[in-house]
Amino acid sequence: MSTTVLTNIGELVTWDPGQPVLTGAALVVDGGTVAWTGPAADAPAADAAYDVGGRAVIPGFVDSHSHLVFGGDRAEEFAARMAGQSYSAGGIRTTVRATRAASDEQLTAHVARLVDEMRRQGTTTVEIKSGYGLSVADEARSLAVARQFTEETTFLGAHVVPEGSEPEEYVALVTGPMLAAAAPHARWIDVFCERGAFDGDQARTILAAGAAAGLRGRLHANQLGPGPGVRLACELGLTAVDHCTYLDDADVDALASSGTVATLLPGVEFSTRQPWPDARRLLDAGVRVALASDCNPGSCYTSSLPFCIAMAVRDMGMTPTEALRAATETGAAALDRDDVGRLTPGARADLAVLDAPSHLHLAYRPGVPLVTETWLAGRRT
Amino acid sequence: MSTTVLTNIGELVTWDPGQPVLTGAALVVDGGTVAWTGPAADAPAADAAYDVGGRAVIPGFVDSHSHLVFGGDRAEEFAARMAGQSYSAGGIRTTVRATRAASDEQLTAHVARLVDEMRRQGTTTVEIKSGYGLSVADEARSLAVARQFTEETTFLGAHVVPEGSEPEEYVALVTGPMLAAAAPHARWIDVFCERGAFDGDQARTILAAGAAAGLRGRLHANQLGPGPGVRLACELGLTAVDHCTYLDDADVDALASSGTVATLLPGVEFSTRQPWPDARRLLDAGVRVALASDCNPGSCYTSSLPFCIAMAVRDMGMTPTEALRAATETGAAALDRDDVGRLTPGARADLAVLDAPSHLHLAYRPGVPLVTETWLAGRRT
Ligand SMILES: [Zn+2]
Ligand SMILES: [Zn+2]
Repeated sequence: MSTTVLTNIGELVTWDPGQPVLTGAALVVDGGTVAWTGPAADAPAADAAYDVGGRAVIPGFVDSHSHLVFGGDRAEEFAARMAGQSYSAGGIRTTVRATRAASDEQLTAHVARLVDEMRRQGTTTVEIKSGYGLSVADEARSLAVARQFTEETTFLGAHVVPEGSEPEEYVALVTGPMLAAAAPHARWIDVFCERGAFDGDQARTILAAGAAAGLRGRLHANQLGPGPGVRLACELGLTAVDHCTYLDDADVDALASSGTVATLLPGVEFSTRQPWPDARRLLDAGVRVALASDCNPGSCYTSSLPFCIAMAVRDMGMTPTEALRAATETGAAALDRDDVGRLTPGARADLAVLDAPSHLHLAYRPGVPLVTETWLAGRRT
Repeated sequence: MSTTVLTNIGELVTWDPGQPVLTGAALVVDGGTVAWTGPAADAPAADAAYDVGGRAVIPGFVDSHSHLVFGGDRAEEFAARMAGQSYSAGGIRTTVRATRAASDEQLTAHVARLVDEMRRQGTTTVEIKSGYGLSVADEARSLAVARQFTEETTFLGAHVVPEGSEPEEYVALVTGPMLAAAAPHARWIDVFCERGAFDGDQARTILAAGAAAGLRGRLHANQLGPGPGVRLACELGLTAVDHCTYLDDADVDALASSGTVATLLPGVEFSTRQPWPDARRLLDAGVRVALASDCNPGSCYTSSLPFCIAMAVRDMGMTPTEALRAATETGAAALDRDDVGRLTPGARADLAVLDAPSHLHLAYRPGVPLVTETWLAGRRT
């Protein structure tokens, strides 16, 4: 393996507990891994040097929540919503029809396009869910498509009850043959635990079946209104529970006293005009907060974690540094990963170079595509 | 001159009054100009063809309000504001110090970088103001720098009263020697007509002096509170009045019965947490509404018109189509231009190609850098 030293770094964000943000620093990559960080003057010799030109270097974004496997789009539904129609989970069924009608090749090309779009915006790890197939064959192939792009695949057969199915029989399908077909392609199992989708008891049943099949649990919960999902996630010790928009004090206490990461998805609130989740309240209570895109064709079709960071700072009470950490290190924690989302020795050398002198610019310059380079495992892509 | 036909256009936005948005269309460029648009099957022969791959083609953005000539940045002030400090125009003086300290070469390189960043985001015409020099020499050189990048330069000596000056003597300087030094480099004159900056009488005096020197007037007005600026702009028949956040019914009536364009700058409200300007109210009253970035280091450091469009749709009551028109055709009107901001025959072939099938995606996919190509006068850049 050869080593490369990155020099002339305007600011280096490592999340090293002693000094999370450095100036005047260098970073040495050995093969695919971060080998050393510290003051540039002390940098060890390396086989090659790469001048970053005074730009900031941050860990690549870890997007722990996305729904990239789908057909069609819902731009017209979006425009109608902006003109006053409210968001309803029923729109998911529109995408189910388009997804079932798409070929494997079409789905793969579509995911490839979105993963590439994410990478150009600095995302180096992405979780991808199924959930627009909702049949045994379509869920299995959705996950097989996703698996080509990431190890972090999530079986979300329990997204909504598809047209023509009864809830009870559909839960039996999800926990039976659909789970059996999906499990070989998935690491995680997820349930949309919300009024109009699946209730707390159904979620418990589905997560238990998933666990028996070797899948780890995560939940969509408390997005559109209060509900049992967040407390259930904490009770079960899930790695993460996502959305967390409508929380009462008991929900916040449960999150604070569990290890469960609360993943907030501000792109959804932007694109549905729902109230913003209160990140400040969660952070002040000691909850671990992650940010992710929720990239999907219905409630939020952004793939941009810089955009999510800008909104989290403006509307959710996070500092720019907290928001960046949420989109990197805590995003990794939401996938039970500690090899990504940081740039300390031993981590994977997944990083983004910003056309800016500091990470503050991610919030200070909203909408501007500041990521100019994305490195994956030590290689500039 | 050679001709090129753009084929396989997913959607073509021309703003032709008869059919502003076309599908199944082609566009022929002759030299730097649009020569023909219409159904692809009817396209005339051309010397070359360029396959757009099903992507949408829109007029390049016309950003009629920016402040790109400055030194330093104010990321720390931004972070403090996000943590609770309120925005004050006094911060402008911080940038004045940094601008005066910068060399001509540094200022030019900085503007070049931002103009390039804008171009990559689809902006093909940009207005650039002075206003961080505030001395005779520094205003003149700011405009000379700006003039290298655009014909749409604006003398904004009346941005704030600089430290150490008295208002009355400063107005005399602006309307006297500073105007004389600035006028050769400028097309427009602008005044920040706001409590803490310049009042209505001062604005009237400064605009009159500018007109006598051959400069056309425009105003910053009604940004931070109610004020006389919007009505003054309408009374004087100015081409545009910008911000328009705090308007009473008389202001709206004045705008509706004048030809003055109301330019809204949502990036400012995003980055200062001020109330959103009410675009819907203005449009419903028959006012011509433009969108621009206001790109500047203090109140709004975005350069992204797609981002402004997304906010205008979410928070200001515009439809995606109205917002795109505001950032193109009406932006051009705010500069008294009709050769740009549209793609009808005779217009300059300034256009953006979106990695999306329709312009709705600019609002539907917030934060995503959808502009994949920008063409200036018929040439792909
Ligand atoms: Zn989701
Ligand atoms: Zn301005």
